[in-house]
Amino acid sequence: MKVEGAWRRAIERIRDGRVIALDQAALPHRVAWLELASLADAARAIRDMHVRGAPLIGATAAYGVALAMREDASALDEACTVLAATRPTAINLAWALGEMRAALAPLAPSARADAAFARAAAICDDDAANNEAIGVHGTAWFRGDGPFRVLTHCNAGWLATVDWGTALAPVYKMHEAKVRVEVWVEETRPRNQGLLTAWELAQHGVPCTLVADNAGGHLMQRGLVDMVIVGTDRTTRDGDVCNKIGTYLKALAARDCRVPFYVCAPSPSIDWSIASGADVPIEERSGDEVRRVHGLANGAPAFVDIAPPHVRVANPAFDVTPHRLVTELATERGRCAATRAGLAGLFPERAAP
Amino acid sequence: MKVEGAWRRAIERIRDGRVIALDQAALPHRVAWLELASLADAARAIRDMHVRGAPLIGATAAYGVALAMREDASALDEACTVLAATRPTAINLAWALGEMRAALAPLAPSARADAAFARAAAICDDDAANNEAIGVHGTAWFRGDGPFRVLTHCNAGWLATVDWGTALAPVYKMHEAKVRVEVWVEETRPRNQGLLTAWELAQHGVPCTLVADNAGGHLMQRGLVDMVIVGTDRTTRDGDVCNKIGTYLKALAARDCRVPFYVCAPSPSIDWSIASGADVPIEERSGDEVRRVHGLANGAPAFVDIAPPHVRVANPAFDVTPHRLVTELATERGRCAATRAGLAGLFPERAAP
Repeated sequence: MKVEGAWRRAIERIRDGRVIALDQAALPHRVAWLELASLADAARAIRDMHVRGAPLIGATAAYGVALAMREDASALDEACTVLAATRPTAINLAWALGEMRAALAPLAPSARADAAFARAAAICDDDAANNEAIGVHGTAWFRGDGPFRVLTHCNAGWLATVDWGTALAPVYKMHEAKVRVEVWVEETRPRNQGLLTAWELAQHGVPCTLVADNAGGHLMQRGLVDMVIVGTDRTTRDGDVCNKIGTYLKALAARDCRVPFYVCAPSPSIDWSIASGADVPIEERSGDEVRRVHGLANGAPAFVDIAPPHVRVANPAFDVTPHRLVTELATERGRCAATRAGLAGLFPERAAP
Repeated sequence: MKVEGAWRRAIERIRDGRVIALDQAALPHRVAWLELASLADAARAIRDMHVRGAPLIGATAAYGVALAMREDASALDEACTVLAATRPTAINLAWALGEMRAALAPLAPSARADAAFARAAAICDDDAANNEAIGVHGTAWFRGDGPFRVLTHCNAGWLATVDWGTALAPVYKMHEAKVRVEVWVEETRPRNQGLLTAWELAQHGVPCTLVADNAGGHLMQRGLVDMVIVGTDRTTRDGDVCNKIGTYLKALAARDCRVPFYVCAPSPSIDWSIASGADVPIEERSGDEVRRVHGLANGAPAFVDIAPPHVRVANPAFDVTPHRLVTELATERGRCAATRAGLAGLFPERAAP
């Protein structure tokens, strides 16, 4: 990833041993780095969405465990409990905590901190490598010479991961290969993560156009979208895709308009314990996210209230796209149908017998 | 309609002969009335969306012609040209101008001003009566005892008309009959007309819950919506429905979730000259509506920029819901299938042979 001309990761442990993460609450208006110095810092960064995106939540949780081990190496379970409670929907969080626990529980407390930082760094390296592989596999979706017009929802770029991104990895791979790809970026109310997507695409010179979430169906109807590519916070073993609220609507429009609908799902985003998307817990976030919009006023961070405080609000943060609406999944091991058989074919060791 | 406890219309000619309209750019934060004293005032009010909603645009255009006739009764064609250019999609605008021209063109200029105000007032009375009739017909959609949960997009309440509203007229009729109806109100980015809907429902004590536009599909998937009711800016003679951008997505979700999708279409919203929704001109509005959000900061009107000014934006204001996705239409003459035969059955004198 390229930030102000330098190559960095969305989260990393830098030379002096500190863990830093790009503060996504300040973007797209300002580039700022958060230092995560403790378990509490990591938990707060996830809960308050200074870091967000399913893979990055997992990576941050891994470093959160490492930071906790430096504080109190005997409190592994407690650290995992604190981090697991931060956000409910992205399965990468539970996956990363499971990985950390498996690596650390057998060790003596005195050995845990170093091992934890090493395991967290490996999770980050794997995330970057998985996403780059997804990018390579996803280039198969671009048939012909282009230019190609991709619609994406939310941010599933490198800001949502350690590096490369999921949905945007194929876009970056095509861009690297000098094929013109233009991206329709949906703003993604209520938190406007589309602005993060527009910002990161701009860092790399990928042309994009911001639209309201309401516009995606119309663009497909008018033949202005060649494919939809999104990420996922949790994909079930049968291929149902839980992703940012509003994704389901775009999958419906894609089917209605015969536009392919692709989902990039690194394996830590796959929940092998659940068959149906109806069983995924959907996070309900604060109504203030709907009532209040953040941005800049005269260049300074500010917000406006769009709804009076007494207006009742519901704010589900995710929805489920049934697998029947998904054209294909891409994982780090390749592409497959969004079905139990498709996923089992790529991950036979994880699939239920 | 009830504003601060008093019964008013969204536009009216008051006792001293002035034309006033509720300034919808100030809502939901502040109740203010605009005086329309000239053709230019009326054209500006429509173009800048101080008044909006297809039926109210028609009514305002009618008064705009009347105000023009008071300024220069020989300039009927010029007045209609100015008003016709304000907004392209709502057919009520062309309809109202056609009505005014038909009434005034045969008259001597000296007789036009009085006749124009009388005809504009009649258009307003007809609008209120048509919408009330739609409300009565639409009550047939509420089967059983309730409570009923209606989802609506944009504002098609009395703020979008002279009185009663279109989509909300059945809701008000049920509320009058003491049946509990709860309304899911979509915020309707980029201009957030859902806040207008929440405001007007609150004036009448109808319970409602505001959600992001992205949430509508999820609510239907989870069985939380009994029916969708929307208005229309232009319905073709074959029943295709052009309405606020994002409507098509909710129609798709309704079909997928087996939720009835109803459209309230007073006859001035029906364009008998067009068969397919693909032929409806779709207004492209300023990208600043997407980049910038208006609201209150510390109680005062303010805005924040959510996207930097260099971000490219597209802002189509309407989309087309194909008639195959519409369960039923309601017009002032009754309900019908969203088909050529259905509409022709209600309006045989308008249907093509």
